Amino acid sequence: MASYTAPLRDMRFVLYELMEGDRLTDLPGYEEFTRDLIDPILEEAGKIAAEVLHPLNRSGDEEGCTLENGVVRTPTGFPEAYALFREGGWTALSCDPDYGGQGAPHMVDTLISEMICSANLSFGMYPGLSHGAYAALRHHGTHELKDTFLPKLVDGTWSGTMCLTEPQCGTDLGLLRTKADPQDDGSYRLTGTKIFISAGEHDLTENIVHLVLARLPDAPKGIKGISLFVVPKYVPDDNGGVGARNGVQCASIEHKMGIKASSTCVLNFDDATGWLVGAPHKGMRAMFTMMNAARLAVGVQGLGLAEASYQGAVEYARERVQGRALTGAKAPDKAADPILVHPDVRRMLLTQRATVEGCRALAAWVARALDEQTRHPDPVQRQEAEDFVALMTPIVKALLTDMGFETTNHGVQVFGGHGYIREHGMEQYVRDARIAQIYEGTNGIQALDLVGRKLPANAGRSLRFFFHPVSAYIEAKMEVDALAPFVMPLAKAFTRLQQATAQVARTGMANPDEAGAAASDYLRLFGLTALAYLWTRMAEVALPHVGTDDPDGFYAAKVATARFFMERMLPQSGALFSQVMAGGESMMAFDDAAF
Amino acid sequence: MASYTAPLRDMRFVLYELMEGDRLTDLPGYEEFTRDLIDPILEEAGKIAAEVLHPLNRSGDEEGCTLENGVVRTPTGFPEAYALFREGGWTALSCDPDYGGQGAPHMVDTLISEMICSANLSFGMYPGLSHGAYAALRHHGTHELKDTFLPKLVDGTWSGTMCLTEPQCGTDLGLLRTKADPQDDGSYRLTGTKIFISAGEHDLTENIVHLVLARLPDAPKGIKGISLFVVPKYVPDDNGGVGARNGVQCASIEHKMGIKASSTCVLNFDDATGWLVGAPHKGMRAMFTMMNAARLAVGVQGLGLAEASYQGAVEYARERVQGRALTGAKAPDKAADPILVHPDVRRMLLTQRATVEGCRALAAWVARALDEQTRHPDPVQRQEAEDFVALMTPIVKALLTDMGFETTNHGVQVFGGHGYIREHGMEQYVRDARIAQIYEGTNGIQALDLVGRKLPANAGRSLRFFFHPVSAYIEAKMEVDALAPFVMPLAKAFTRLQQATAQVARTGMANPDEAGAAASDYLRLFGLTALAYLWTRMAEVALPHVGTDDPDGFYAAKVATARFFMERMLPQSGALFSQVMAGGESMMAFDDAAF
Repeated sequence: MASYTAPLRDMRFVLYELMEGDRLTDLPGYEEFTRDLIDPILEEAGKIAAEVLHPLNRSGDEEGCTLENGVVRTPTGFPEAYALFREGGWTALSCDPDYGGQGAPHMVDTLISEMICSANLSFGMYPGLSHGAYAALRHHGTHELKDTFLPKLVDGTWSGTMCLTEPQCGTDLGLLRTKADPQDDGSYRLTGTKIFISAGEHDLTENIVHLVLARLPDAPKGIKGISLFVVPKYVPDDNGGVGARNGVQCASIEHKMGIKASSTCVLNFDDATGWLVGAPHKGMRAMFTMMNAARLAVGVQGLGLAEASYQGAVEYARERVQGRALTGAKAPDKAADPILVHPDVRRMLLTQRATVEGCRALAAWVARALDEQTRHPDPVQRQEAEDFVALMTPIVKALLTDMGFETTNHGVQVFGGHGYIREHGMEQYVRDARIAQIYEGTNGIQALDLVGRKLPANAGRSLRFFFHPVSAYIEAKMEVDALAPFVMPLAKAFTRLQQATAQVARTGMANPDEAGAAASDYLRLFGLTALAYLWTRMAEVALPHVGTDDPDGFYAAKVATARFFMERMLPQSGALFSQVMAGGESMMAFDDAAF
Repeated sequence: MASYTAPLRDMRFVLYELMEGDRLTDLPGYEEFTRDLIDPILEEAGKIAAEVLHPLNRSGDEEGCTLENGVVRTPTGFPEAYALFREGGWTALSCDPDYGGQGAPHMVDTLISEMICSANLSFGMYPGLSHGAYAALRHHGTHELKDTFLPKLVDGTWSGTMCLTEPQCGTDLGLLRTKADPQDDGSYRLTGTKIFISAGEHDLTENIVHLVLARLPDAPKGIKGISLFVVPKYVPDDNGGVGARNGVQCASIEHKMGIKASSTCVLNFDDATGWLVGAPHKGMRAMFTMMNAARLAVGVQGLGLAEASYQGAVEYARERVQGRALTGAKAPDKAADPILVHPDVRRMLLTQRATVEGCRALAAWVARALDEQTRHPDPVQRQEAEDFVALMTPIVKALLTDMGFETTNHGVQVFGGHGYIREHGMEQYVRDARIAQIYEGTNGIQALDLVGRKLPANAGRSLRFFFHPVSAYIEAKMEVDALAPFVMPLAKAFTRLQQATAQVARTGMANPDEAGAAASDYLRLFGLTALAYLWTRMAEVALPHVGTDDPDGFYAAKVATARFFMERMLPQSGALFSQVMAGGESMMAFDDAAF
C-alpha cells in the first residue's frame, strides 16, 4: 500500500511564505498562534495522520461498516483510533475555548483537515460531521443547549450529524416532510425519515447529536417552513451524562462506491425528543451560516485525496522499472528504467503536483479570509472578508473536488494495471474522491450558486474582492521580466474571465437558463484563473531563492511547477471561455422527448 | 437499477445511413449480410443483452468471483447465461465459417460487442478473451492446432486467454521470464508465472486454452526472444475431447475496482505442456496482428458503458423531481420539476449523448475499414484500409475509453447522491470503465504508439488516409450554408490538428521526448477532430430529413446533438493545441529528485 507523509514543507511555504501566516497573531483571539505553536501542531497532526489513521484506510475500505439490530460497527481499529484522536485534542482544535476548544485559526485547521483527508477520509467524516453540529449549535443554540451539548462535541465524547436529506428531497429541501410537534415542556417530538446521514450511527462515541431539519405544524410550505432541531440519540440526563434512549433508529446503511468506513445511514425518527435551534421556520438560514465552512471542508477532501494519490504515484514511478527512456537508457545497470523517465508519466505527475499545490494555496487563501471574517477587529474588513469567502466557497468546493477526482485518477493511471487492484490503495482514492463532487451540494449546484447568487449579490460587490487584487497584481507585475512566463498567461486567462463574467451577467439577466448553461464551465474558468494568480504569486515568492538559497531544490521545483501549470494546464481556460461564450441554446432548445 | 435497451435506431443510422452498410455485400464473403439478415441479428443480440446479460450485471458485481482450491466460480447465473449465449451462436458470430463460425462483418460484430459491453462488461470478457485466442491460433497456428482448438473456441465449449503480463513486466514485455523447454515429441514444457490473466480460470467452459508468451532456451534477450505457445488447461485427447489435466494452476484472483465478475487470475505454469504458435522468437509479431482488433474491442467497451450510463441518466432525469426550472415551473401539477429542465443536467446528458453517438460512428468507421482490410478484392484497397486501421486504432482505444470513463461519471453526477449508491448501478459503470483506460496498453502507450509509430510509419503514409478525406470533405462542403455551423468549427479543429502534427513530427524527430510529452494531448486533439468530421457528416445526412421526414424527431435530435458537440465540446481542441505547441520542456526539465 502507498504510504503517506504530511507535506509539511509545502504547507509551511503556503502558510508563512505565501499567506503571511506569521501575522495571524494580529487577529484578536489568535495571539498565541505563533509559528512556535503552529509548527509542532502541524507536525503532530502529520504523525497522527500517517501513523494512526492512514494504516486503517485500506482495511477500513475492505471491512466497511456493518449494521446489526440497529447497531453500526465501524471497521476494526476505528474505535481505538478515534479514542487516540479525541484524547489528543484534535476534535477540539478549532473550537471555541469557552467550551473547551483550542481556538485554532481556520488556516491551521484547513491544513490539518487536509492531512486527515489524505490519510483516511472515512475516518475524518466522523469528527467532520461533529464539527458541523457543533457550529450549528454554537451559532444558533440557546445558552442551555450550548452548555449541554457543546462541551461534549468539543471533547469528542459525543459526536454529531446533519440530517437534511429525505428520500424525496436532496437538493430541493423545500420538499421535506419530517414533522416536529411542540410539547408542553418546550421540547418537540420529531417524526420522519432521513437518508444519507453520514455518521448517523456508529460505535465511536457514547452519544450522537443529530441536527435535524423538520417542519412545525404551522409551517409555511416550501423552503420557508423549515426549522432546525437538535435530537440526541440519548437524551442527556440532569448531570449532563447519557440518559434515556431517544426515538431515533438506524434502519439501514448504504452500500456505496467509496468512503465505506464512513457509515451512511437511513435514520427513522419516531416521536423523538428534540429542541428547537434558532427561530421557528428559520432553519435554512441556520444551515446557510454553516454551509460555507462545510463546503470549504469538502473542497479540502478533494485536495487531501489528491495529495495522497500524488505521493503514491511518485513513489511507484521511482520504483517501477519498465521500458527505456525514449532518448536512451537512464539506468543501464537495471533491467529497465524507472517509469519516471517517460514524458507521459511526468505529465501525469506534474498535473497532479500543480493541482495539489495550487489547490492548497487556494484553500489557504480562503481560510485566511475566513479567519479575518471571524476575527478582524474592523467590521468593514470583516464584511469584505465575508464577501470574498462567500464568492470563493462554491469555487473551492467544486474545483477542488473535481480536480481531486481527476488527480486521483492520474494516480491510478501511473500505476497501470496495478492501480486497478484494491490492495495498492490507488483506486480507493478515486472511489473516495467521487462523493466529494456530489455531497454538500453537487458541483452543478455550486456552479449555480456562483452565477445565480454570488455574482449578482449586492450588485456584484463580492466579485470586486477577487477581481481588484488580481487586476492590481497583474498591472504591478506586468513589466517584471522574470515573471513574464507567469503574468502573461495569467493576464490572458483573467481577460477571458472578465469577458465571460460580463457575458454571464448580461445573458443571465435576460434568461436565467443562459447563466445555468454557462455555470459549470464558468466556475472552472474562474477556478483556473484563481490558480493561475496563486501560481504566479508562488513563482514570485520562490524565484529569488532559486540557486542561491535552495539546498533541497524546493524553490526551483515550485517555479518549474508554476511553469508547467501555465503551459500545460491553463490553456484549458481558452476552451472554457469559448464554451461559455457559445451560450446555452444548444442545450435548452433540445427536444425533451428526444433524449 | 437502471434498465438497458439496445440503441437499434442509432445503430441502423450509423450502419446504413452513415457508413453504407448496405454495400457490405459487395465484399467477398459478406454476400449474405444484407439488411434482411443483419437487422434481425442486431435485434436478437439486443434481446440477449437486455434480458439475459444486463440482469446479471449488478448481482455479478456484488458477488464477484471466488477461488477455492484452485477452482474459480463465476457469480450466480453466469454459467447459465453463458450456456444460452453459446447455444445462440454468439461466440461464433464473427468467426471463420471453416471452423463453424458465421463470418459476420466487423461492423456488425462491433455493434453487437457494444451491446454486450453495455449490458454486462464482466460477462463479455469471457467470450472476448476467447476471441483473442481464436484469432491468434487462426492466424499463426498449424493446421493441426487449428483443427484441434478452433472448432471448440468457435462454438464456445472451450474458452481462451491471452497470457502476457508477469509481475515484473506489463508494458515492457522484453522483461518476461516464463520459459518453454522443447520436448522430443515436438511439444514444449512451460514454467513461469503470469498475472492479470482475464478469464484465466472459471466455471463456464469445459476447457480453457491459454495463449502464452514465453522464452525458448536459445532465445535472444529482450523483446526479440519471445515466442507464442498454446497451453490448454486440459490436454485434448485423441478424439478432440478433454484429456489429462495440464500443469497450469490458478494461484489467486485479484480484488479489483470493477469488472468483479470477470476473473483476473495469477496463473502458475509448472512444466505445462504446450505447442508453439508461429515461428520461434516471433511471438511479438503474432501478438501484434491481434492487437489492433483487441484494442478496437477495448475502445468499444468504453462506448458500451457510456451508452448504458446515458440511458440510466436520462431515465432518472425524467423521473426525479427536484426544484423548479430557472424560468418558472414546467410541471406545476407536481411537487417539483423533473431535473431534466435544469441547464446543467442537460449539459451533462448532451455531453454523454454527443460522446456516445460520435464514438459509435468512429468505431463503425474503423470497423468498416477492418472489413475492407480483410475482405476487399483489391490488394491496394486492402493495404490502404490496413494503414487507416493501424493509424486509428490507438485513437479509438484511448479516446473511447477516456470518454467512456468521463461519460459514466456524468451519469453518476446526474443521479446525485443516489449515483454513489451501488444498488442503482451507475457507479459500477464508472468502476468497470476505469480498467479500459489501462489494459490492452495504457492510454499513454496508445498515445506513444500514435506519435512514435503510426505517424512516422511509411513516411507518414498512414496519415493520408485520414487527412485526405477530411480535407477533401471540408473543401467540398465549405460553401454549403446549412452545414456552416458544423464545417466551420471542423475546419478550425482540422487546421489545429495539421499544425500540431507538423510540430510533433518536427520536434519529435529531433528529440523523441518532445513527441512523448505531446502524445496524450495530441491523441485527444486527433480524436476530437475525427469526431467533429463524423458529426458534420451525420448532420449532413440528417438535415434533409428534419421536419419533413422525421416523425419521431430522430434527425432533428441528431442535428441538435451535432450542434452541441461543435459549440460545447470541440472548443477543447484549442486548449489541446496550445498544450501540444507549448512543448515538453516544462516536464522534462523538472528535477527527478524534486517530485
